[in-house]
Amino acid sequence: MNKIIECVPNFSEGRDLQKLERILDVFRGKKNIKLLDYSSDEDHNRTVVTLVGEPEELGAAMIEAIGRAVELIDLNHHEGQHPRMGAVDVIPFIPIKNATVEEADALAKHVAKEASEKYGLPFFLYEKSATAPHRENLANIRKGQFEGMAEKMKDDMWKPDFGPETIHPTAGATVIGARMPLVAYNVNLSTNNLEIASKIAKQVRHLSGGFRYVKALGIELEDRGIVQVSMNLTDYTKTSIYRVFETIKMEAARYGVNIVGSEIVGLVPMQALVDTADYYLRLENFSSDQVLETRLQ
Amino acid sequence: MNKIIECVPNFSEGRDLQKLERILDVFRGKKNIKLLDYSSDEDHNRTVVTLVGEPEELGAAMIEAIGRAVELIDLNHHEGQHPRMGAVDVIPFIPIKNATVEEADALAKHVAKEASEKYGLPFFLYEKSATAPHRENLANIRKGQFEGMAEKMKDDMWKPDFGPETIHPTAGATVIGARMPLVAYNVNLSTNNLEIASKIAKQVRHLSGGFRYVKALGIELEDRGIVQVSMNLTDYTKTSIYRVFETIKMEAARYGVNIVGSEIVGLVPMQALVDTADYYLRLENFSSDQVLETRLQ
Repeated sequence: MNKIIECVPNFSEGRDLQKLERILDVFRGKKNIKLLDYSSDEDHNRTVVTLVGEPEELGAAMIEAIGRAVELIDLNHHEGQHPRMGAVDVIPFIPIKNATVEEADALAKHVAKEASEKYGLPFFLYEKSATAPHRENLANIRKGQFEGMAEKMKDDMWKPDFGPETIHPTAGATVIGARMPLVAYNVNLSTNNLEIASKIAKQVRHLSGGFRYVKALGIELEDRGIVQVSMNLTDYTKTSIYRVFETIKMEAARYGVNIVGSEIVGLVPMQALVDTADYYLRLENFSSDQVLETRLQ
Repeated sequence: MNKIIECVPNFSEGRDLQKLERILDVFRGKKNIKLLDYSSDEDHNRTVVTLVGEPEELGAAMIEAIGRAVELIDLNHHEGQHPRMGAVDVIPFIPIKNATVEEADALAKHVAKEASEKYGLPFFLYEKSATAPHRENLANIRKGQFEGMAEKMKDDMWKPDFGPETIHPTAGATVIGARMPLVAYNVNLSTNNLEIASKIAKQVRHLSGGFRYVKALGIELEDRGIVQVSMNLTDYTKTSIYRVFETIKMEAARYGVNIVGSEIVGLVPMQALVDTADYYLRLENFSSDQVLETRLQ
């Protein structure tokens, strides 16, 4: 695969594995698509799927999978701890390799248009694809959930971007759009004082004056007797891991606290690590094309 | 390509791009070979080429390219800051995928035998292919350079492994052999005092008491008015890039000199950058399996 976009659809089914298998089957054995991972949560009654593929084939498979989910999942009988408004609740498209966020955005709109016409399902564009600032955030759009959505959509503020102006009777409505890869990054401090982690979290997070693409929270790691600044970096190309790390180190110093370690949870794009090496080694003119493995594909 | 060996020939031409293109053309458009990279340095008057391929086709192309270089490059008229003894100065073969160091060694010997007979060029085996301990090291073999090699080869210690017992009149002699992946890494200093770069090079290189897998040399970058510690890291898994960088920074400080930048010339295995990010971010339990791109293959 030359141009790679990732797609992480969230399906509102985490208990009936037979139904789930029928949906996952759509992604199997197809050219230029790879099903990387799926993870079901019974309490949430929800499954998060990770796919990568060439844009065209990925879009076609996603349209087919939406059809399968609309057919199989009835939200009138859905219970779970995770908020949801659609059989396919949210479909982010993420540029990974030789692809821009504009291409991911175009793919999201293509899938939304086709699937809305095919299945009579309304779609809301979110994140980088959002058509208004109040529609960027998933939680804002989903507020009221499946049960409240028919009423909410009567308001002009909440007309869908594609499809009918009211919910699908069983499949609700779907949120779709382009976003950047997310890096779950935590920094561990040499103290058990939660207040210090919380103060530092406030200093680095966007919400309270920190970096534009950081969400952060101070938490306790009780088993280790230390505290942690737990973060999501929502655009590592603009708010780099190393900048966040060094800022936390600098803020922690005033309390006489050190960084004992940090952790990347789950996957991280290679470029985020290249950027880190580039900064610390003060590399001149380094390009990720120089990474041997990128040439062998 | 199923079985992949890398070849990184160093040609003693970094200024005449027309000559260089005629050599590079040998590697283009051939089946089961890929020209990954080439990088010319005018000060060094040298070009480092990176190829990968199936052993058989890679060997055949390399033999052809040696012929082209013998035809085009005359060392009697070669000036440059980098030591050299041959038109093709050195040809390492490196096992990359589904290939052993023994296969790389067999390939090196095959190329040396064929090319020595075809072009009347003497070959010295080095690194893992060396026939005696004093011939493992490239610098040892190359000492005296093109100008001193005819005299040096009169000594039984320095008979070539293949080809005539004296140098080719214009193309000198070539060093060839199998080795592990190498990282060409240079650190630039905020001074034009070559003595400082040379002292630091001595401190970090294996030969004079430094790190086991570092070869280093102080050189001038005249066009920039600074000096450089120019290195080869011969096993980045045991002597890490960041450790070398930090040691040079520490040694430079005593002269009031800073590191203004560093550069990776050509390709670098992903793991070398992961190790760097891992060190500086103090990562806990990070595995290169977490790099998204490794999942895409």
